[in-house]
Amino acid sequence: MKYGVIGTGALGGFYGGMLARMGGDVHFLLRGDYEYVRENGLRVDSVMGDFHLPSVNAYDAADAMPKCDVILVCLKTTKNKLLPDLLRPLLRPGSVVMLLQNGLGVEEDLASRLPEAEIAGGLAFICSQKTGPGHIRHLDYGKLDIGSYNVKNTAIVNQVIADFRAADIPAEMSEDLRFARWRKLVWNVPFNGLTVVMNTTTDRLVADDSMRRLVCEIMLEVIHGANRCGVDLKESLAQKMIDMTVGMIPYAPSMKLDYENRRPMEIEYIYSRPVETAARAGFVMSKTVMLENQLRFMGSGVKSCNE
Amino acid sequence: MKYGVIGTGALGGFYGGMLARMGGDVHFLLRGDYEYVRENGLRVDSVMGDFHLPSVNAYDAADAMPKCDVILVCLKTTKNKLLPDLLRPLLRPGSVVMLLQNGLGVEEDLASRLPEAEIAGGLAFICSQKTGPGHIRHLDYGKLDIGSYNVKNTAIVNQVIADFRAADIPAEMSEDLRFARWRKLVWNVPFNGLTVVMNTTTDRLVADDSMRRLVCEIMLEVIHGANRCGVDLKESLAQKMIDMTVGMIPYAPSMKLDYENRRPMEIEYIYSRPVETAARAGFVMSKTVMLENQLRFMGSGVKSCNE
Repeated sequence: MKYGVIGTGALGGFYGGMLARMGGDVHFLLRGDYEYVRENGLRVDSVMGDFHLPSVNAYDAADAMPKCDVILVCLKTTKNKLLPDLLRPLLRPGSVVMLLQNGLGVEEDLASRLPEAEIAGGLAFICSQKTGPGHIRHLDYGKLDIGSYNVKNTAIVNQVIADFRAADIPAEMSEDLRFARWRKLVWNVPFNGLTVVMNTTTDRLVADDSMRRLVCEIMLEVIHGANRCGVDLKESLAQKMIDMTVGMIPYAPSMKLDYENRRPMEIEYIYSRPVETAARAGFVMSKTVMLENQLRFMGSGVKSCNE
Repeated sequence: MKYGVIGTGALGGFYGGMLARMGGDVHFLLRGDYEYVRENGLRVDSVMGDFHLPSVNAYDAADAMPKCDVILVCLKTTKNKLLPDLLRPLLRPGSVVMLLQNGLGVEEDLASRLPEAEIAGGLAFICSQKTGPGHIRHLDYGKLDIGSYNVKNTAIVNQVIADFRAADIPAEMSEDLRFARWRKLVWNVPFNGLTVVMNTTTDRLVADDSMRRLVCEIMLEVIHGANRCGVDLKESLAQKMIDMTVGMIPYAPSMKLDYENRRPMEIEYIYSRPVETAARAGFVMSKTVMLENQLRFMGSGVKSCNE
């Protein structure tokens, strides 16, 4: 299987790098790091063991890339307007575009902009960062939940999962992508937004009584929103996720890093879409809306290519 | 009438100073500024005209003060635990304690701690700051809404209003102190909290689309909370207050100044009490609770004598 990786950062560099290390045929699209990676390869410092790929298939333009069986989209959703132009050169009949992105509605939007694409989605449960050009630091976790959105031949999705497992990535097939996306939102909605607005890290949020209570209430709101949309998440998930976070290393979620580095935040797909989706089902996510408004105020002035 | 002023800061210095300027018999309790004010008096730079009172009745202990007809309490509510001890030496039968403080429940709490007190409340619509020892800067407005909580002889409250008016302070009698307190909360709940949490000023909040929307939603929540408690505020008040704020000079509310100066914030009476009061009437103020939790997290580490 030939893999394309769109966006070789914390996520694409790690997952693409792991596939390449086990001998996979992986082709990386880069921007700023292109020259550096072409000359020096890709370095991954991982809790699962450090490794260096001295030579990788690096490209600075989608036009220059080969057609691929699977294209892993590891861009921030704030760049999703670019996706049709980035993907078209890599697609052939039967190619699967796999959106390793957070939030709700990314598959729907891509399907309407690029109707010929067969789309799957993936949720990455991972702590990783890009620490320098071609240099990824993998801090913890790494599980992938993968599900089809409109893939005709799902055998290819199974093959992706088998490839990831062969590359030591715990990957699982999700029969219900909407369930997987809402489930991850239960964590992302409170922790992404509150680490930005309160200027803190996950460990301090769960150590503080007021914040732990607020996190729990926001989680329940997301769960109730999902329920109204027909997604069967249990209320007990909130406490489980808080307990899990208590056990995590102190962590700045991706949105916090985006804010600190003056990059646009993924407000649209993590906040606005769930809020709109629940509203259409008759449920008002009032705390999530409030966090969304606070984040929009903090992010105003930073241009996103979605805007 | 003999007036006592407990807390000679932005509020007490201005209102007490205005009464003293017109010849009122005013006695000021001070702490840090006592020595300075005893020697240099009180200076008020006001949009209504600057003035200097070279000699004022200044005290550094309540025990040293005379019995008063009216005691204006101009302390932050974060110091209300101190009130019974500060007030007892000034009270004689018929004295009225007038709480010029924001929030809900201040009269109830004082009544339970000092049952012999006859209590009134006042809401100050004023922009003023203490800029140095014995030095007050009055930036705008100044109206007082005054109402009785449990005053037996309300003639004294009318006399206070007459005295304020004689001192060029627009003062009005409020027949329903609960109405006046909830009405002011409609402004205070969004603007006090959001200027702190978003680290900004009132003008920027109302200039931003997301924030103006959020401010309006929080105002409506406070109005609905009041309605459920039997207080007849109209929804149209929200837009009126936003329009008024658009016309105001850029302003950092008192809570923002408290936060910046690492003083405890008035979270208890401006947030927790309205939330609890509405909850007892069966109404959940979810955005107000969220703001309360955010403020408690930001204020943690700052000791308040209420705690």
